[in-house]
Amino acid sequence: MSNDIRTVVVIGCGVIGMGWAVLFLSQGLKVIITDPAEGAEARFEQYLQDAWPLIAAPEEFDSLSKNYDFVHDVGPRLKEADFVQENGPERVDWKTELFETLDKHTRKGVVIASSSSGLPSSKFVGRCQTDPSRVLIGHPFNPPHLIPLVEVVPHPGTSQTSIQTALGFYRSLGKKPILLRQEIPGFVSNRLQAAINNEAYSLISRGIVSAEDLDAAVTSGPGLRWALTGPIATNALGGGGGPEGFGNRIERLGSAIRGWEEDMLKHRFDWNQESLATLQDQAKKSLQDVDWPNMVAERDAVLLKLLNVKSDAPSMAWIV
Amino acid sequence: MSNDIRTVVVIGCGVIGMGWAVLFLSQGLKVIITDPAEGAEARFEQYLQDAWPLIAAPEEFDSLSKNYDFVHDVGPRLKEADFVQENGPERVDWKTELFETLDKHTRKGVVIASSSSGLPSSKFVGRCQTDPSRVLIGHPFNPPHLIPLVEVVPHPGTSQTSIQTALGFYRSLGKKPILLRQEIPGFVSNRLQAAINNEAYSLISRGIVSAEDLDAAVTSGPGLRWALTGPIATNALGGGGGPEGFGNRIERLGSAIRGWEEDMLKHRFDWNQESLATLQDQAKKSLQDVDWPNMVAERDAVLLKLLNVKSDAPSMAWIV
Ligand SMILES: NC(=O)c1ccc[n+]([C@@H]2O[C@H](COP(=O)([O-])OP(=O)(O)OC[C@H]3O[C@@H](n4cnc5c(N)ncnc54)[C@H](O)[C@@H]3O)[C@@H](O)[C@H]2O)c1
Ligand SMILES: NC(=O)c1ccc[n+]([C@@H]2O[C@H](COP(=O)([O-])OP(=O)(O)OC[C@H]3O[C@@H](n4cnc5c(N)ncnc54)[C@H](O)[C@@H]3O)[C@@H](O)[C@H]2O)c1
Repeated sequence: MSNDIRTVVVIGCGVIGMGWAVLFLSQGLKVIITDPAEGAEARFEQYLQDAWPLIAAPEEFDSLSKNYDFVHDVGPRLKEADFVQENGPERVDWKTELFETLDKHTRKGVVIASSSSGLPSSKFVGRCQTDPSRVLIGHPFNPPHLIPLVEVVPHPGTSQTSIQTALGFYRSLGKKPILLRQEIPGFVSNRLQAAINNEAYSLISRGIVSAEDLDAAVTSGPGLRWALTGPIATNALGGGGGPEGFGNRIERLGSAIRGWEEDMLKHRFDWNQESLATLQDQAKKSLQDVDWPNMVAERDAVLLKLLNVKSDAPSMAWIV
Repeated sequence: MSNDIRTVVVIGCGVIGMGWAVLFLSQGLKVIITDPAEGAEARFEQYLQDAWPLIAAPEEFDSLSKNYDFVHDVGPRLKEADFVQENGPERVDWKTELFETLDKHTRKGVVIASSSSGLPSSKFVGRCQTDPSRVLIGHPFNPPHLIPLVEVVPHPGTSQTSIQTALGFYRSLGKKPILLRQEIPGFVSNRLQAAINNEAYSLISRGIVSAEDLDAAVTSGPGLRWALTGPIATNALGGGGGPEGFGNRIERLGSAIRGWEEDMLKHRFDWNQESLATLQDQAKKSLQDVDWPNMVAERDAVLLKLLNVKSDAPSMAWIV
């Protein structure tokens, strides 16, 4: 099916919708976009110009980047959609109503994906009368045109065909989709982030390290490895590599790790007023010298180089 | 003091000691190494040849790389040390005895650092009669000549002067030292790793995602960002950047995050036999196609390029 996807409808063109739309256009797709916000279309035009050179050839700008319609009323255009990517407000009532409409007016079999980062789709398919089995979550990472990860999260009634179509479509765009076999709060990547953040907040609010040193403990240490090898592969390497590497590490370090876990559990960040105040104060101090206006552009530039470095290592296919 | 450090004694020349020794030599230091293991000296010679081109100019190999003595009995040479880096077995009794000797025979004020990744130094300074205040942990990350992070962990009796000397010395080598203000189990970076690993183990053993997809959820998502911005800076960017970015994110997402945390707590990886068996089985499956013999060299090559990419962005001084 993903070969047949030529036209994508993008609902909501804020931070996430803009990123998706640029990506779709750069891949030669036709895009129909809707967003009622004042100035949304102009903002998207600007975004397109800024983001294009990061992910596509400048000489293709004229031929590909204009292949979109920014519409007020998307209803009559839904029949054209081969795939829908929804990026509106994160509200159950809003998504429930919208998905009822999307389900009613799109063609049979067309997958309807929500970018939702928290709400599982079972919460908002309740009024889909035609075919809720083609609804699922396609959760991107900001910015969606740069970060490869997309979490595909089916609800209990999502069909295998829809799952495979979504995985195939995202892959065809150069994305790295992963599949959750079950809906869970926070999906995978936000849970992993929450896990590390809780311990980070605790260490900072307890005064063990400065916020600056905490960040350095990641960016100059394990963060460098996590850009290349995930937790499991990193553990396996720490255990000497090979098929037994992971098991060896667990065997050698398991009991020490359980001791650290006990201590971490005892000192979990508790979100109380005082801890939060200390944390926020420390975070502000740590970041006070950041040149914010230039920072995101610079981060994106380094990120792109990092992605190129990774793709330059073809024999590291195990590095995703 | 770090300007005066010309000679470093390296005790234990295994995985970690070899990395330190290469780094010290590449920075023009004289190194005195001891390790009783059969073949240790020959292994180090080979390691030196392999690692040198990664961190130092080939034309300096002849002038700098031979500036070491590999000795059987380090006792009589301890007087020459301006700094000691210990990398022997992770055993309290062994380190206690060794540190008594090191403390007795090194010159006054010379800092004695242990690479220990778990044992805080208060556990093994008990027999230091001369001056335990110059003992501390200098915990590197493997491989120490490539990964910048060094965790400096004083024990309650460590002097400010020793702490500053160690921080200055590691910085002068191009390392990124961070300071823990207090001994805690697992120090900072191993705790952060344990936090993410526990959730990873849980998600895999519960069958929510494959081990391969779990790794991709990091390397294609947050891991890419953690190589550049730590948890706090990443949160601040997620909150729109600026001095209020961190607080904004907490305000907007705090309650959702607490919900995820509750669910994670409920499903913590419990280390029981069955969960462990599933986890190890999944890890093996995920890594079965890895070309282990070439993998570490390739990972190191990509890691170096990543470090270069980061150092090529001078205006991102906030990225450490
Ligand atoms: N910001 C992130 O980092 C991030 C990451 C991954 C997923 N998400 C998810 O993506 C979705 C969008 O988030 P965002 O950050 O882009 O929010 P945003 O507020 O920047 O964008 C939402 C857009 O939806 C528009 N909208 C409102 N009503 C609409 C309607 N009836 N039809 C079409 N558009 C409408 C708004 O005008 C706005 O432009 C949310 O579900 C969010 O959870 C966000
Ligand atoms: N491997 C890692 O990833 C890592 C990371 C950071 C810190 N560390 C810490 O570094 C230290 C060394 O770990 P490693 O992984 O290099 O272990 P290793 O087993 O590879 O090396 C230890 C070396 O110490 C030598 N040794 C034994 N008795 C000695 C003696 N009396 N005098 C001198 N040397 C002696 C051994 O022969 C061996 O070569 C440990 O404290 C460990 O916790 C390890």
